[in-house]
Amino acid sequence: MADAVFSHLQPAAARRLLLSAHDVFAAKGYHAATTREIAAGAGMSPAAMYIHYRSKQDLLFQLSLLGHEACETVVSTALAQARGPAEQLRAMIGAFAAWHAANHTTARIVQYELTSLTRDNFEAVASIRRRIDAQISSVVERGLATGSFEVNDLPGTALAVTSLCVDVARWFPAANLNSPHDVAVLYGDLALRMVGCKD
Amino acid sequence: MADAVFSHLQPAAARRLLLSAHDVFAAKGYHAATTREIAAGAGMSPAAMYIHYRSKQDLLFQLSLLGHEACETVVSTALAQARGPAEQLRAMIGAFAAWHAANHTTARIVQYELTSLTRDNFEAVASIRRRIDAQISSVVERGLATGSFEVNDLPGTALAVTSLCVDVARWFPAANLNSPHDVAVLYGDLALRMVGCKD
Repeated sequence: MADAVFSHLQPAAARRLLLSAHDVFAAKGYHAATTREIAAGAGMSPAAMYIHYRSKQDLLFQLSLLGHEACETVVSTALAQARGPAEQLRAMIGAFAAWHAANHTTARIVQYELTSLTRDNFEAVASIRRRIDAQISSVVERGLATGSFEVNDLPGTALAVTSLCVDVARWFPAANLNSPHDVAVLYGDLALRMVGCKD
Repeated sequence: MADAVFSHLQPAAARRLLLSAHDVFAAKGYHAATTREIAAGAGMSPAAMYIHYRSKQDLLFQLSLLGHEACETVVSTALAQARGPAEQLRAMIGAFAAWHAANHTTARIVQYELTSLTRDNFEAVASIRRRIDAQISSVVERGLATGSFEVNDLPGTALAVTSLCVDVARWFPAANLNSPHDVAVLYGDLALRMVGCKD
């Protein structure tokens, strides 16, 4: 599934290297990964790798950026295609959860290795995270304003709804919940319950 | 906070080694950690370490076992102290979420390095996980039987409620949610919403 996130990346050698980094980071974590094995996984020499990426850190950063950008697009698209806070929240959370199911290996790397990013790289990724969070929060806020939703703690509830979706990457697939579509249906419903939707 | 999970461990040298492993695993992940630096962190030689633990795998296994056992105790205690499905679910989920807040570094290691355990070690830990899941599921089931709760997908909803709590370890603390007690209060409420509690 990593292909879906990286499929637009050009040239092909840069894409192959990022896919190899993805596999090595997933298998042993960022700190234990070496640029030598990442290059080898893409059928290249370490020297050829440096044409495309400055360092292992650069690979993690590109992977994190592409993962977050793909996720932001999915959430924005869902928001734009629905009307009214309840259907917007259902669509956004369904899409966000399904993305974490379909791309669970990429999502795990991106989430669990956030603290392995340098400060500047982390900040660039964090700004995308804040935009995704803001989109979710603003829909919850609108639902409160229109009287559709009822929550005691807006930031806490928005955080919990987001967190629920992110954690899909950790457990997916489960015995009874093994397609991104099924996750989307259940999670859209759960999010509306969490915000006390009265529609 | 790792002290709380490991405080009963004897002898003191075994406890110091496990705390050092905890810190090294948290900093760079299991695969990049070396027994040499774990021993050094406990002020010991690698040879002295082998008196207490056979390997780095053994340290991860003990850490995972103690973490899961502590968590199971917290959930069982909460269940035993409350009456009726709604109050039992609120208490269990509050305690489970608060544990992941208070012990977030231990919980992160234990969750994210599950796949680094050998098959037998994983199975021993997985059996504790299944017992915790079963306790949560059985309360949701009782709430459905008494008509207190209403859910469309029992295993999916129980999984989501558990997942919500586990993911606290990833983000805790947050700006507006920075004490385990506040997490417990919000999450107990959210769990009741997720199961459609009508009480």
